[in-house]
Amino acid sequence: METEKNLIPPQTLKGFQDLLPSQMIARTRLIEDIRTVYERYGFVPLQTPTLEYLSTLTGSGGEETNKQMFRLHSPEGDAIAMRFDLTVPFARLVAQYPNELKLPLRRYQIGSVFRADKPGPGRFREFTQFDIDAAGSESVAVDAEILAAMTEVMHRVGLRNDPDGAAQFRISVNDRTVMNALLVACQVTAEEQQKHVLRVIDKLQKIGLEHVRQELGNGRIDESGDPIRGVGLQAEQIDQILHVVAITGDSRRDVIARLAALLPETPVSQTALQEMHELADALDALGVQEHDVVFDPSLTRGLDYYTGPVFEATLPAAPEFGSVMGGGRYNQLVERFLETPVPATGASIGI
Amino acid sequence: METEKNLIPPQTLKGFQDLLPSQMIARTRLIEDIRTVYERYGFVPLQTPTLEYLSTLTGSGGEETNKQMFRLHSPEGDAIAMRFDLTVPFARLVAQYPNELKLPLRRYQIGSVFRADKPGPGRFREFTQFDIDAAGSESVAVDAEILAAMTEVMHRVGLRNDPDGAAQFRISVNDRTVMNALLVACQVTAEEQQKHVLRVIDKLQKIGLEHVRQELGNGRIDESGDPIRGVGLQAEQIDQILHVVAITGDSRRDVIARLAALLPETPVSQTALQEMHELADALDALGVQEHDVVFDPSLTRGLDYYTGPVFEATLPAAPEFGSVMGGGRYNQLVERFLETPVPATGASIGI
Repeated sequence: METEKNLIPPQTLKGFQDLLPSQMIARTRLIEDIRTVYERYGFVPLQTPTLEYLSTLTGSGGEETNKQMFRLHSPEGDAIAMRFDLTVPFARLVAQYPNELKLPLRRYQIGSVFRADKPGPGRFREFTQFDIDAAGSESVAVDAEILAAMTEVMHRVGLRNDPDGAAQFRISVNDRTVMNALLVACQVTAEEQQKHVLRVIDKLQKIGLEHVRQELGNGRIDESGDPIRGVGLQAEQIDQILHVVAITGDSRRDVIARLAALLPETPVSQTALQEMHELADALDALGVQEHDVVFDPSLTRGLDYYTGPVFEATLPAAPEFGSVMGGGRYNQLVERFLETPVPATGASIGI
Repeated sequence: METEKNLIPPQTLKGFQDLLPSQMIARTRLIEDIRTVYERYGFVPLQTPTLEYLSTLTGSGGEETNKQMFRLHSPEGDAIAMRFDLTVPFARLVAQYPNELKLPLRRYQIGSVFRADKPGPGRFREFTQFDIDAAGSESVAVDAEILAAMTEVMHRVGLRNDPDGAAQFRISVNDRTVMNALLVACQVTAEEQQKHVLRVIDKLQKIGLEHVRQELGNGRIDESGDPIRGVGLQAEQIDQILHVVAITGDSRRDVIARLAALLPETPVSQTALQEMHELADALDALGVQEHDVVFDPSLTRGLDYYTGPVFEATLPAAPEFGSVMGGGRYNQLVERFLETPVPATGASIGI
């Protein structure tokens, strides 16, 4: 009873939002649309807790993650944190129930995830992710099914890429193995330097080719006058990377052909190109149109745990939303918890 | 990359649970059933963040709450906590958007809530609440609508109270004003002592009448040999309280008549009985059956923020689930944040 009227200001935390009825009704409809597609593609629902052991989220070596977490302690004093995505908890779950779960397992999950960072415009520290993942198969046919489901989600929510109109959405696909082949070909072999290169390429859409060139070299001074450290590559290395990253084509096979022309003939290149061929075949077999899912060698998906194909969807007419869907294959994440390798792939829609 | 195979044990936190597909499919169906009823009764969806300022949840004076919270700090260093229910955040929201929200507002919200306590069997530290609340009306007709909606939820999920069969669910209703009238009549006027009495009565189903009598008096020794401090009331006070608490009747009006016979004729008694009469009228008008919603003077709902009618649903055939729905009127909660009083009432299903 606050008879003293010592009022508490009614406010949401910085970076968090309320959804009032008009927003929430639209959100609920969107979720139902997405769920309908996921279920039609044979994914079943699962739920994991909001909180996890910190070690589950960071890995035993405190692996580098580019996700800043809300950390706290359990009543028992254990270091715990709020999940920053639904993928790592899914990997933990796959490892935890070897007898209850039958592989391959195709699941969807919807839930809040949390990032203790400074959110950009239109971004929040708590947001909803709506994920599909498939565990237990190495086949890129499964990656193609994830991409087909995501394409249908885009169509279902009303986004179209008519050949004669402007693109309303674009799903970009690359393969981490291609990037590995390229890095090795350029003699970028130290893991830290490789990650730095991928981080810089990841900024291509945001900062443009010239700034990427500078950051791959000696660095640059940003708009606020702050210096940005460069990777320190030589001009020829940078050229070689940027030639590959700049590849576009009229079709997925066209992109593969140009990649084949630019990548040196190493075993890792052969593996990468073979994988992209198989992915292209599977996408064709599923009827996924060329203008909906595009191979794009500039896509890196930052520092995440991906090992094969990576995916991302953007809305060309609304670039301010950034990536509205992202994912890829992560064949080594379940191994964080289990001796037996369990390959997996999936994608996440953030809303 | 854990090439060293320094495995992390895959495990959920103590008190938390994963829902595997068979459980989650059943859960999803249950939620859809409940949502359908809520929407038919005119409630609209809303969403608030998982995290709130600690002061929002505890009140300006750090008001006593019987909910233990998961506390942490925001990146800005503010004391924050994970919500322990959806009612307090709703009160905050009602106060925060006076121009955007039109009162009376009837909203539903589904979401995880968190309790950093030692959960009993079948209970968890994170669980889902599915709430309806109505803000902006003092009328007990609105409380009756909440009860009618909850009755329909029970029917919708397949629970029935056939006159010739065993009761599958029971919604109990009492009024805080009745308890206040009783306490004042017994000369229990100190706030702390009043709360203690309510806490003891709240345990009636669990510990039985004789233990309640002892705890209202000088206390008792529990099964483990630990002493439980008593309220210290005199035998006549205890008798007076237990006579009222033990009232049952063949109908809601029967219970009111027996209450009227036992409560002294004070203004607060008159108010309480008048409110229960109006609630009984409204329940009749909405066609809520006597065997579905029962007036029960032993219901107190512990220490919560209720000011008028209080509700609770139990499953007589599955007492281990405890209360599956609870709620009541909380006319003073929005005032924590706002000069203007905004009366409100609601109920929550915990799953």
